[in-house]
Amino acid sequence: MQKRYLLAPGPTQIPPEVLLKMAEPIIHHRNPLFESIVAEVRENLKYLFETKNEVLIFASSGTGAMEGSVTNMLSAGDKAIVVRSGKFGDRWANICKAYGVETIAIEIPWGDAMDPADIEKALKNNPDAKGVYIQATETSTGAKFPVKEIADIVKNYPDTLMVVDAITGLGVFELPQDKWNIDVLVGGSQKALMLPPGLAFAGVSDKAWEFNKKSKLPKFYFNWAKEFANLQKNQTNFTPAISLIVGLRESLRMIKEEGLENVYRRIDILAKATREGAMALGLKIFAKTPSAAVTAIVAPEGIDGQAIYKSLWKKYGVTGAGGQDQLKGKIFRIATLGYADKYDVITAISALEFTLKDLGYKFQMGVGVAKALECLKDL
Amino acid sequence: MQKRYLLAPGPTQIPPEVLLKMAEPIIHHRNPLFESIVAEVRENLKYLFETKNEVLIFASSGTGAMEGSVTNMLSAGDKAIVVRSGKFGDRWANICKAYGVETIAIEIPWGDAMDPADIEKALKNNPDAKGVYIQATETSTGAKFPVKEIADIVKNYPDTLMVVDAITGLGVFELPQDKWNIDVLVGGSQKALMLPPGLAFAGVSDKAWEFNKKSKLPKFYFNWAKEFANLQKNQTNFTPAISLIVGLRESLRMIKEEGLENVYRRIDILAKATREGAMALGLKIFAKTPSAAVTAIVAPEGIDGQAIYKSLWKKYGVTGAGGQDQLKGKIFRIATLGYADKYDVITAISALEFTLKDLGYKFQMGVGVAKALECLKDL
Repeated sequence: MQKRYLLAPGPTQIPPEVLLKMAEPIIHHRNPLFESIVAEVRENLKYLFETKNEVLIFASSGTGAMEGSVTNMLSAGDKAIVVRSGKFGDRWANICKAYGVETIAIEIPWGDAMDPADIEKALKNNPDAKGVYIQATETSTGAKFPVKEIADIVKNYPDTLMVVDAITGLGVFELPQDKWNIDVLVGGSQKALMLPPGLAFAGVSDKAWEFNKKSKLPKFYFNWAKEFANLQKNQTNFTPAISLIVGLRESLRMIKEEGLENVYRRIDILAKATREGAMALGLKIFAKTPSAAVTAIVAPEGIDGQAIYKSLWKKYGVTGAGGQDQLKGKIFRIATLGYADKYDVITAISALEFTLKDLGYKFQMGVGVAKALECLKDL
Repeated sequence: MQKRYLLAPGPTQIPPEVLLKMAEPIIHHRNPLFESIVAEVRENLKYLFETKNEVLIFASSGTGAMEGSVTNMLSAGDKAIVVRSGKFGDRWANICKAYGVETIAIEIPWGDAMDPADIEKALKNNPDAKGVYIQATETSTGAKFPVKEIADIVKNYPDTLMVVDAITGLGVFELPQDKWNIDVLVGGSQKALMLPPGLAFAGVSDKAWEFNKKSKLPKFYFNWAKEFANLQKNQTNFTPAISLIVGLRESLRMIKEEGLENVYRRIDILAKATREGAMALGLKIFAKTPSAAVTAIVAPEGIDGQAIYKSLWKKYGVTGAGGQDQLKGKIFRIATLGYADKYDVITAISALEFTLKDLGYKFQMGVGVAKALECLKDL
């Protein structure tokens, strides 16, 4: 008997109540029952995004909404500033490249902090840049980026959009779209929304809709103006991922019932306990500005990060994640976003202690868990 | 108490066994358990498509794979022949237009038969056409198009691809991709595959992969060459719709266990019984060459087709579909693809008799059901 604990940065655990709702007989999407579900989901997505504007819903992975953030806003030959500091920053650059958008890349060593002054400088050097494309959390490194500070700069540039991939961020920490002047805020279902992958979201500001009118890049499946028009009738442009939207209604209700501030506080404490627990074991946190969504932990000298990740998963039942691309073998990751509680963190740190002991790392058993308990006491 | 019967042309009924599999705790996609599921699904998709080639899997509605059939095969300024005879033929034309592909449209009145000679003529007049884009079933009219006969013509044109939207067709009737020389065969999850919407498929021939090498249209989320490369490792290019792929494994197992020929025979008889039952009531079938997937029935003189569709659904518990666009009010539709059996047809014809009686149509109650029973006796 081996129970399984999913603590990966997506997919995350799905509440059994949500799984069972999605297992009910499927309903047709072109009728009032489904439309009433979409109506509720629209309202609660606005609550989650903290926006008065419409949040678009797509049947795709989060990347589909990232692509749409380029193709619905820009034209070929436009310039965009992207921050490359991990696998997902690279993705912004690759999308731009695929569509003939010139990128001004701000290169930051993976895991390092992002200095908003670099964005300001790039904007001054490229006043014709039509957008700044960043991540809220760079999932590959566990780094959180200063969205508010950067948005405060970009808002002074009327011809530049602030676009944030918050696939790992929305429902994790504060990202109020309207208050912070985020023009496009992108989300995905399989993270803090506690759903299977297959839905993507985009909150779109009035300023972004003005850009949309002038955008000439080709699009069809991800045509945001048409999605917007359909949403006004509580419909989608193409057949929606019905079962996931039924699940979304439930998970948004759960988030609203807990309250955004409580969700943010819970995940913040879980992440802190994960970091402190790991550090008590003598390990280092990889990101200089760690995100509460996912903690990237540096494998100790002489021990392979992939060996830790695999032991956690295979022998000790805890599915985290390894390192990607250049970080493979150097780090392993434990996520605390979504449907995670204090006992998940205690489980993860326990499994980490078992694993490190197996791998010959020297430490006193229990010090990691003890530290985690201390952090979690008042949650 | 009102039991609900879903007989729409997508989504279709989902077997409870499949719903429950998808309700199991979600698994992570970057690990061997998920990879073993993808490996099995790849094999069984090849069985369903009757191809030796890879069938690509996308997290999107079927339209995503339709878009990819244009963007991965063609370049801006290319010419494509499309058959416009309903809402989905129009979609091929609209996708081409969005991407700067010139369309040669063969216009056929909605519901009429398609003459393969028209395709031959269009090809002779446009020898530079890079593709012929058609539907297997035009879902909006219930018409089946002569895929084999058209493919037999197109195969003689080495610079032209045969592309079939078989979203409503795959798993319904014979469409052997390799034997018939279909270059791109597109499917979706929410039809004969008995799953929720959210997965799209594309079987791709060797000839189509040669076109892919030369295609210059921009793509990123729907980049088929990258999906192909990932599938070789039993992975997908972006986070897959995990729960739907878990369900897909089950529904493909069910299809394989029944056997494709038996599936085709069952659905063929169900559709025949639906048509004969309706005709016994004095109603007309809209399509001249009806598809077994969905039967479009003409509303009798003086009765609104939407009133029939709505009564079937609201008062009598049977969710079919109304008419779309120019057919709104003129027809209503009852589908028999996927997880449908003889009692579903008897239920649908019974509900139709109740409805017609309510709406003042003159007929002898029971003659429709009696005719359906006769057709279904040996299933």
